[in-house]
Amino acid sequence: MTKMAHHDLFHIIDARPFDRLLLDELVELTSLARAMGQSKEGSAFLSGLLQHKRAMLYFTQPSTRTFLSFNNACQILGIGTSEIRDRSISSEVKGETFEDSIRTFSSYVDVIIMRTPGDGRADKAAQLMDSIPRRIPIINAGSGKDQHPTQALLDVYTLQRSFADRGGIDGKVIGMIGDLKRGRTVRSLSYLMKNYRDVRLVFIAPPTFEMEADIRQHLATNGIEFAETTCLDEVLPQLDALYVTRMQSEHDAGDESKSFDYARYSITKKELEQMRPDSIIMHPLPRGPEIHPTVDQDPRAVYWRQERNGMWMRVAVLIKLFGAEQQLIDG
Amino acid sequence: MTKMAHHDLFHIIDARPFDRLLLDELVELTSLARAMGQSKEGSAFLSGLLQHKRAMLYFTQPSTRTFLSFNNACQILGIGTSEIRDRSISSEVKGETFEDSIRTFSSYVDVIIMRTPGDGRADKAAQLMDSIPRRIPIINAGSGKDQHPTQALLDVYTLQRSFADRGGIDGKVIGMIGDLKRGRTVRSLSYLMKNYRDVRLVFIAPPTFEMEADIRQHLATNGIEFAETTCLDEVLPQLDALYVTRMQSEHDAGDESKSFDYARYSITKKELEQMRPDSIIMHPLPRGPEIHPTVDQDPRAVYWRQERNGMWMRVAVLIKLFGAEQQLIDG
Amino acid sequence: MTKMAHHDLFHIIDARPFDRLLLDELVELTSLARAMGQSKEGSAFLSGLLQHKRAMLYFTQPSTRTFLSFNNACQILGIGTSEIRDRSISSEVKGETFEDSIRTFSSYVDVIIMRTPGDGRADKAAQLMDSIPRRIPIINAGSGKDQHPTQALLDVYTLQRSFADRGGIDGKVIGMIGDLKRGRTVRSLSYLMKNYRDVRLVFIAPPTFEMEADIRQHLATNGIEFAETTCLDEVLPQLDALYVTRMQSEHDAGDESKSFDYARYSITKKELEQMRPDSIIMHPLPRGPEIHPTVDQDPRAVYWRQERNGMWMRVAVLIKLFGAEQQLIDG
Repeated sequence: MTKMAHHDLFHIIDARPFDRLLLDELVELTSLARAMGQSKEGSAFLSGLLQHKRAMLYFTQPSTRTFLSFNNACQILGIGTSEIRDRSISSEVKGETFEDSIRTFSSYVDVIIMRTPGDGRADKAAQLMDSIPRRIPIINAGSGKDQHPTQALLDVYTLQRSFADRGGIDGKVIGMIGDLKRGRTVRSLSYLMKNYRDVRLVFIAPPTFEMEADIRQHLATNGIEFAETTCLDEVLPQLDALYVTRMQSEHDAGDESKSFDYARYSITKKELEQMRPDSIIMHPLPRGPEIHPTVDQDPRAVYWRQERNGMWMRVAVLIKLFGAEQQLIDG
Repeated sequence: MTKMAHHDLFHIIDARPFDRLLLDELVELTSLARAMGQSKEGSAFLSGLLQHKRAMLYFTQPSTRTFLSFNNACQILGIGTSEIRDRSISSEVKGETFEDSIRTFSSYVDVIIMRTPGDGRADKAAQLMDSIPRRIPIINAGSGKDQHPTQALLDVYTLQRSFADRGGIDGKVIGMIGDLKRGRTVRSLSYLMKNYRDVRLVFIAPPTFEMEADIRQHLATNGIEFAETTCLDEVLPQLDALYVTRMQSEHDAGDESKSFDYARYSITKKELEQMRPDSIIMHPLPRGPEIHPTVDQDPRAVYWRQERNGMWMRVAVLIKLFGAEQQLIDG
Repeated sequence: MTKMAHHDLFHIIDARPFDRLLLDELVELTSLARAMGQSKEGSAFLSGLLQHKRAMLYFTQPSTRTFLSFNNACQILGIGTSEIRDRSISSEVKGETFEDSIRTFSSYVDVIIMRTPGDGRADKAAQLMDSIPRRIPIINAGSGKDQHPTQALLDVYTLQRSFADRGGIDGKVIGMIGDLKRGRTVRSLSYLMKNYRDVRLVFIAPPTFEMEADIRQHLATNGIEFAETTCLDEVLPQLDALYVTRMQSEHDAGDESKSFDYARYSITKKELEQMRPDSIIMHPLPRGPEIHPTVDQDPRAVYWRQERNGMWMRVAVLIKLFGAEQQLIDG
């Protein structure tokens, strides 16, 4: 995040600098916008809120969920969208540089939401914006192996909301299972836990996929308790939330994903029986074999709600970005 | 159609269950919406009618006409749209199942309009929707070899409207020519004719492409008179409407389409001379050599109007689907 | 342009027939719309102006800039858009003719904006429209090697606006550098200069890429002074504007582009030193090595503003096309 102050948002490149004040405000705005969207009148209000803004969805890296949730968030707010999802139709085929392409987009719109291959692209775009007269915000929608900040925000929202009657995230035990080594979502979420009191993390993964040292170091430095295990059954009864992730096989150097033992690290009816009745199961989706479809019917499975939360959190992010939060609150 | 009752629409998978009451209502709503769309004020009214709704256009099977008419129908009603028209840009490349993709779309929008390769997909999507808490309607826009219900509806509308001064469809003689064996449109339309009184059908095709037994059986069972011929000239003077279709060569097992004798089964100026002055020529488009472009200038050629009718019928379908028909009538 | 009268616009195929009266009016409308777009209230007014219209963006030839500027211009005016940017998803794969495709688009929308491979396509589409009952305007967005009229208009606007305090385009010395032989923009702009008083043109290019005889003939016939040189340094101090263009290497017969000597025909800090303090540097973008990125910081570099002007000029063109200019003026 190139610029970051209390209650002020511009580029959104990385979730790490988000503090409790901002997280709480975004959670509030998300719930408010979502409640408004239930009625036709509320929807009409929302659709006028940012009708004077336009967004560029620059998604040359395949994505369904993030693209759709941003596109629909824009529509909810009356923001016009333009999309580039296929590099072959753009001026890059005429040899235009990345910088010139980004500056071109910025000529026509008020925010660029981007997910492109290659690392550091969103940050580079934000730096370019900071050097030109018509500066517009950049939102990183998960470019390359970079951070995926709005995913981290919607995860926080889902946790906070699911535990609304039990004091929110503070004091909860959160398990994370799967490809912890390469999963952006579990890494970001672990990072953000420093903003909450008495959270305990439990990492569940075989050694090949265990959480990286930088995150463990961060947790230790910030006094966040965590445990590591290779045995799911052992910890299931303690968990308030279980965050399940898929194998990031697209980042395999060799064949490591094939070694992953789904028999030991999946959620089926059997695992449900060991979980607390008030616990929740999350997943950033898309899922692989790590959650059996029959689990969907269990009330503790909140990942489909989590997905829809993503759209509403992005509504909140756009409202905050364009400084319309007071209008939402007053509206 | 998973659910179907008088004056109640949800999933639209198949035209066959549509009854006269519903067909008549949709024809009415289409004419009403269309008349409104003529003025700037009427357009403004329509564009507010469903502004709180959003649609997913999931069109991974090539389509210009159906895609554009649904997209523009949505715009007329203020419905925001998201589109996937290229499978390579979606999460299916990460191995997501069809069911999870559909459920994901349903998280963000209020209706899914789909045309995807493979049979039975729309029905499968509708069944999924019926099993989840946030159930939204599915519209089959012509998936695979399945039914193409909104095409059948716009055909009914075009017939009914063209014969508005002559008592509508009841009592008319309707010829169908071309690839009757594999043409979805002529099959669906034949099916729906049971809703009208004293209609007579004339099937004109070489034996290789003649209407299938199931439709002939259906007509016999429902007491609808029909004749079959290989000679167009012979029947031309009797017809009120001639529904022309193209060769479905994409469904060829071998080379059968090449055997089709356009010299005997095409419409040119010569055929026009034999047709009644108050008859009409329809075609679902796109057309091949079966209608010569000079025919377009003849006032009896209504296929371009039929195409535009498709957009307005889809406007009516969406209005009915979201229960806004009374608002339209009162507006 | 199939039809053209003072203060009347329909098809926009070619910039050449535009006269001073119309150019001045479009410049006015552009400035007016642009000023309005600065406030939320003005934006709301603009977004209702053509809300009852829909556009087809038929861009099967790669284009970022022109596509985005038309798409955003439509959004500013509340015009709904449909896009085809990939031929493989359209009915042309079923063998539909170009004429039938265009007529199909025209069934659903109120204007077709097109950029397709092949010469004369926009003109052909306009002729088709003039022969059917539901005639809608065609805008050529730079099809094939044809004219690119809206680019010429935005260039005129940028010149006129940049010299607003110095009497506009009249009396200015305008240099053009680069691939003058094949560059549509410099050709069109040269052509339009007959509408201005005492303009002097200076063509700067190596012999292989010099301005074609037809344009030089046109200038001579219309009494527009021009000079040709192979030496940029010599003329730099005289110029009010320098219009820089890129190599059209996609139109190379052999390897001619590789012979272009960027050392002699590029703009760097060195060239800036020789230019007048009140001069401007334009470029239609995308750029190649002919303008060094460090030039962007110089206040005389107006090409990024020129790009954004393109969106607002297209707003003005659409307003004029649909006869809403008085509403804009009164609004």
